[in-house]
Amino acid sequence: MCGIVGYVGNKEVAPILINGLKKLEYRGYDSVGMAVLDDSNLTVLKCKGKLAILEEKMSQNYPKGFIGLGHTRWATHGKPSDINSHPHVSKSGKIAVVHNGIIENYLELKEFLETKGYEFVSETDTEVVGNLVEYNYKGDLVKAVIETLNEIEGSYALGIMCTDCPEMFVAVKKDSALVVGLGKDGNYVASDIPAILDYTRDVYILDDKEVVVLTADNVKVYNNLGVEVKKEVFKVTWDVAAAEKAGYEHFMMKEICEEPKAIKDTIGPRIKNGRVVLDDIELTEEYVKNIGKIHIVACGTAYHAGVIAKYIIEKTARIPVEVDVASEFRYRDPIVTDKDMAIIISQSGETLDTLFALREAKKKGARVLSIVNVVESTIARESDDVLYTWAGPEIAIASTKAYNAQLCALYLLTLELAYKRGCMSEEQYKNIIEGLQTIPDAIEDILGNKGAIQRFASSHCNVKNIFFIGRGLDYALSMEGSLKLKEVSYIHSEAYAGGELKHGTIALIEDGTLVVCPVTQDDLMDKMISNIKEVKARGATVLAIARESNEQVHKVADEVFTIPDVDPFIAPVAAVTPLQLFAYYMAVVKGCDVDKPRNLTKSVTVE
Amino acid sequence: MCGIVGYVGNKEVAPILINGLKKLEYRGYDSVGMAVLDDSNLTVLKCKGKLAILEEKMSQNYPKGFIGLGHTRWATHGKPSDINSHPHVSKSGKIAVVHNGIIENYLELKEFLETKGYEFVSETDTEVVGNLVEYNYKGDLVKAVIETLNEIEGSYALGIMCTDCPEMFVAVKKDSALVVGLGKDGNYVASDIPAILDYTRDVYILDDKEVVVLTADNVKVYNNLGVEVKKEVFKVTWDVAAAEKAGYEHFMMKEICEEPKAIKDTIGPRIKNGRVVLDDIELTEEYVKNIGKIHIVACGTAYHAGVIAKYIIEKTARIPVEVDVASEFRYRDPIVTDKDMAIIISQSGETLDTLFALREAKKKGARVLSIVNVVESTIARESDDVLYTWAGPEIAIASTKAYNAQLCALYLLTLELAYKRGCMSEEQYKNIIEGLQTIPDAIEDILGNKGAIQRFASSHCNVKNIFFIGRGLDYALSMEGSLKLKEVSYIHSEAYAGGELKHGTIALIEDGTLVVCPVTQDDLMDKMISNIKEVKARGATVLAIARESNEQVHKVADEVFTIPDVDPFIAPVAAVTPLQLFAYYMAVVKGCDVDKPRNLTKSVTVE
Repeated sequence: MCGIVGYVGNKEVAPILINGLKKLEYRGYDSVGMAVLDDSNLTVLKCKGKLAILEEKMSQNYPKGFIGLGHTRWATHGKPSDINSHPHVSKSGKIAVVHNGIIENYLELKEFLETKGYEFVSETDTEVVGNLVEYNYKGDLVKAVIETLNEIEGSYALGIMCTDCPEMFVAVKKDSALVVGLGKDGNYVASDIPAILDYTRDVYILDDKEVVVLTADNVKVYNNLGVEVKKEVFKVTWDVAAAEKAGYEHFMMKEICEEPKAIKDTIGPRIKNGRVVLDDIELTEEYVKNIGKIHIVACGTAYHAGVIAKYIIEKTARIPVEVDVASEFRYRDPIVTDKDMAIIISQSGETLDTLFALREAKKKGARVLSIVNVVESTIARESDDVLYTWAGPEIAIASTKAYNAQLCALYLLTLELAYKRGCMSEEQYKNIIEGLQTIPDAIEDILGNKGAIQRFASSHCNVKNIFFIGRGLDYALSMEGSLKLKEVSYIHSEAYAGGELKHGTIALIEDGTLVVCPVTQDDLMDKMISNIKEVKARGATVLAIARESNEQVHKVADEVFTIPDVDPFIAPVAAVTPLQLFAYYMAVVKGCDVDKPRNLTKSVTVE
Repeated sequence: MCGIVGYVGNKEVAPILINGLKKLEYRGYDSVGMAVLDDSNLTVLKCKGKLAILEEKMSQNYPKGFIGLGHTRWATHGKPSDINSHPHVSKSGKIAVVHNGIIENYLELKEFLETKGYEFVSETDTEVVGNLVEYNYKGDLVKAVIETLNEIEGSYALGIMCTDCPEMFVAVKKDSALVVGLGKDGNYVASDIPAILDYTRDVYILDDKEVVVLTADNVKVYNNLGVEVKKEVFKVTWDVAAAEKAGYEHFMMKEICEEPKAIKDTIGPRIKNGRVVLDDIELTEEYVKNIGKIHIVACGTAYHAGVIAKYIIEKTARIPVEVDVASEFRYRDPIVTDKDMAIIISQSGETLDTLFALREAKKKGARVLSIVNVVESTIARESDDVLYTWAGPEIAIASTKAYNAQLCALYLLTLELAYKRGCMSEEQYKNIIEGLQTIPDAIEDILGNKGAIQRFASSHCNVKNIFFIGRGLDYALSMEGSLKLKEVSYIHSEAYAGGELKHGTIALIEDGTLVVCPVTQDDLMDKMISNIKEVKARGATVLAIARESNEQVHKVADEVFTIPDVDPFIAPVAAVTPLQLFAYYMAVVKGCDVDKPRNLTKSVTVE
C-alpha cells in the first residue's frame, strides 16, 4: 500500500530518499515524510499531499545526515493528514518508524501502552509500533524489535531507527514486500525495487519475520529467534518499468497476485476471536433490525460486487436489496425511505455517477455506508459510515484485487446484518468466517495453476464473441468475468443467467462459440449442467470454473479450471480470480495494452 | 386473431370449409366450428380443440348444404370451450355468426338485449352480435346488419347467415382483415387469403364498414349507408407461403405491421369514457393501497416489458417493483410476502421458467396477476387474475406485436394502480390515456417511413458488434432492441445504460462501431447527448431514435430515425417499432431465416 525507502551510508541521505520516493509516486499516495538521523538528532519532516510540499519544507529545514527513512502513505487507519503521515516517533522521541500494512491488534496494544503512560497523537495503527519498540527497548534495538514482532499481528513492512544507534537502522516484514539493496556507498531498504534501482541491482528478498540490521558497510539478517541467516544476493535485471511491476509483465497481473494480501488485509483486522468486528461503522442491533430495504449503488466492477451482495444479504439477512447502476439510480426517482440503508461501492471513492447517487440516497433519507478503497475520498467523506477495503493502490485500469476486497467487505457486512437480525446460526456464522479465512490460500493455489488458463487462452485467442453463463452467485460472477474480458481484450462478451440464454440470445451460439461457465453452486449444479449441454448441442466450446468436488462438470465441459473446495456461499471471492486471469491472458495474447485499455480511465469523474 | 372462411355456391360447402380452415391452422387456434344452411335447416358443429375433432363430429352428423361459414378461434373473451366456439346462433336460432376481433361494448349491448328477453349461453363478446342482428331484423338482413354496425364498437370481421335467406350470407369488417373471393362455382369470404387460394385468385379487399352480400353467382358491396360500392378486383399472385404472410415476405414484418391493431385491441375494450376499466381483474382500492411490493417475473422479451413496467409503476404509483428473470427468481429464495403482488408476463402462457416462478411466488403468498396472450394457457389458469393481451397469434419466433401489447397492458395497470393510490392527478391520468390512444397512429406513421431504416440497415449490415444505449425508459427499450437484433440477425449486440458504458465496456468502441440510441426522454436528453458524444469521440457511428421535438439529437447523431411526438412517458410503446424494424432489416440483408432463427423455439417449455 504505502511506500518505504531507507538508506544508511556515506552520502547525504535526504536526496536519496526524495529520489526513491519519486520512483514510488506512480503507485499513488496521499502523504509523504522522512526521518533523518544526524548523530542523535532526529529530524522528522512529513505532510499530507505531494512530494513537492515535502521538498518545500526541506528547503526551510534541511535534514542533514547519512541515515534516514522515507515514506509515501496510502491511508488506511486515519485520514490523510500531517499528523497521520509517517514516520511516527515514539513518546520519548527515541524511535522513528515507517510502516506499510495493517497492525490488526493495534487497538489492544494501544490500550495496553496507555496503561503504561504512553499517549498517542495520531489515528494510525503505526504509532503503536514505535511506542511498543520503545517499551521493549532495554538498550538493544534488535532485541526490542524481535520482541515487538511477537506482539504485533497483521501485515507489515517496517523501517525502525533509534536515536541511541545513529549508525544503523532495522527493517522487518511480514506479508508486505520489503527488499534490502546492497550498494557501494551504503545500504538500502525499499518496499519496491524501483526506489533503489538508481543505486544498486544487488538485493536481498526478505522472508517473513526476518530482521535486518543495516549499517553503512554491513547488512545482517536474523530470523525471529535472533539467529543470523545467510541470504542469497538476487541480481535485478529488470528495467525501471519492469521493476515498478515487481517483475510482473503488467500491473494487472501484479495486482491479481496481490489478491491474497488484499483479502487478508481487508478481513484480518475485522475478525477477532471468530467474530466480525466492524468498529468503524455504526450498526446497532436496533438499527439493523429496522432496516426497511438496502439500496446498493455502484458502477462497473463495483456494481457487480453489489449484485453478489444482493444474493447473499437477501439469502441470509432477509433484508430486501435493490442494486442499481449509479447513473440510472440518480435519475429514476427511486423509492427510498428514511428506514433504508444505502451501500455505495467505489474503488476510488471519486466515481462521479456514484457520488451523485450517494447524494440522491441521502437526500431521500437513507443512511449511507460506503465501501471504498481510498481513505478520505469524496464518497468516504460524504458517507455516514465507511467500510474501507484495504486492497492498496490499483494501477491497472481494470480492477481486480479491489473487487475481491469489496466482496470481502460485503461478506463481513452480511454476516453482521444476518447475525444481528437473528437470521444466522452460530454454526453457519462460524463456517463462513472460517471459510473467508481460507480464501487467500485458495487464491494462492489458483495462481499456482494459472498456466492452465494461459494455455487455454492462447489456443482460443481468435474467438470473436464469448458468453458467460451462470446461475445465482455464478451469474453475478459471470457479469464481472465478462466485463473484465471486454475491458482488457476488447472481445465482445456478455453475461447471461444460465436459464435465460435460451430465451433469445442462444441464437448466437454456433460452432466454436466460446462459453465460460462458473459452476460453483452445488444446489444449481444440475440445472447448470443442462444449460451447458444446451450450448454444447449448438456447437459451443465450454470452459468451466468449478470447485474440486464438482466432478460432474468434467463430463460436460471441454475444459475445466478447478479451484479449491471453498464453501459455495463464499466461492465468488476465489472463483473470480480465474476469470480475471482468463481476461488477462486473452488480452496479452492479443497484444492489447492490458494496463491501460483504450477509452478507459481509472477513476471516472464525469457523468 | 381467429380465422374465417365462408362459401356460397353450387358445390357442397363442408369440404370447402374444412379445406379452408386447414389452410389457416398455421396461425394457431384453440377451437373450431362451422354453420351450414340447407334451405332453412341450420346445422352448427363446433368444438374446443383441433380440426380433426370437428371432422369426427361431421362423420356422425354430416352437414349437407351449399352455403356455410367456418371458423377457427383464438380465445379472447371466454376460455376455449365447445360453447364459446363459433359460430354463435341467435336466441331464435335464426341468425348464425362467425367473428374475428373484439366487440368492445359487448357488455352494455348484452345488458340491453337482456332487458329485451335475450339470454346468453356463452362467455363471448360475439354472441351479442347474432342477437343484436336478430333484434334489428325486420325481414331485411342487410338492413339489420347495417343497423348493428352502427351499434357495435371495436374491431371485427363478421360472417352472418340467416335461416330466412338460405341463398345468401352477409360479411362486414372493421379493423380486422376480410377478403371476398370471386369463384367460378361460387363466392367466398376469408379472413386470410390462403383459405381460398385453392379456388380463386380474384378477390375484393374490403374497406372498413363495407357490407358484402354474397350469393352463388353474385357479390354486392355496400357502404354503411346502404349505397352500393364498385370494387376493384385484386389479382392474387402470391403462392401459399406468401399468402399466409398476407403478402409480406416474413411473418415478423406482418406482425410488426399488426402492432397498431394489437394495441387497439388490447387497450380499446379497456378504456371507457376516458377511464381504464379492468373488469376482468380484481384490484380493489383497499388491495391496491396495501400492496407491499410488486415482483415482475418473466423471460426474454416479456422480461424487458417488465423492466419498462418497473420504471413506470415506481415513478407514478410509488410501489416498489423488482423485476426478475424467471430462472433466477425461482432459485434465489426471493423475499416475497403475502402483501406482495406478482406480475407474471408470458406471450404463450406456457413458458416453463415463468410458470415455475409463478408457483414460487404463489407459494410465498403473493397474489398473482398474469399478462398473457393465450387464453386458458397454463399460466393464465394458475394465476389469481389475468390481464390478457389481445395481440393475436404470433408466428414469427421473435416476439414483436406481443411486446407492444404487453406494454399497453402494463400501462393500463399502472394507471389503475397510480390512480387508486391517489398518486396521479386527473390531468396526468387523462393525458396518458389519450396518449395511449394515439400510439396506433404513431406506429402507422413509423411503418410508413420504414424505408429509411431499411436503407440504413442495408448500408451497415457488415458490422460485427452493435451497442444499444439509453437512459431510463430508453435503457429498458435498448434491452429489447438489442435482444431482437441478436435473435434474428445473430449480430452480437448488448444494451447498456447510457451512463454505465464508460465504466468498462466503452473499451469496445472503435472506428465504425455502431451504437443505437433511443433518445425519447426529455429530462434525460442532455445527459444522453453527452453519452452520444462520448462514443462518437471514440469513432462510433450513431443511429438515434428520437421524437420529432428532440431536435438536438440531429446535431450529434449520424442518422436519426424520427418518431411522432408521443408523450415521453409512453414513448417506448411506439419507439420499439423502429428497433424491431432495424433488427428485421439487418436480418433480411444478412440472409437470415428471420421467422425461425436457429436454436430458438416460440414457446420455451424447458428449463
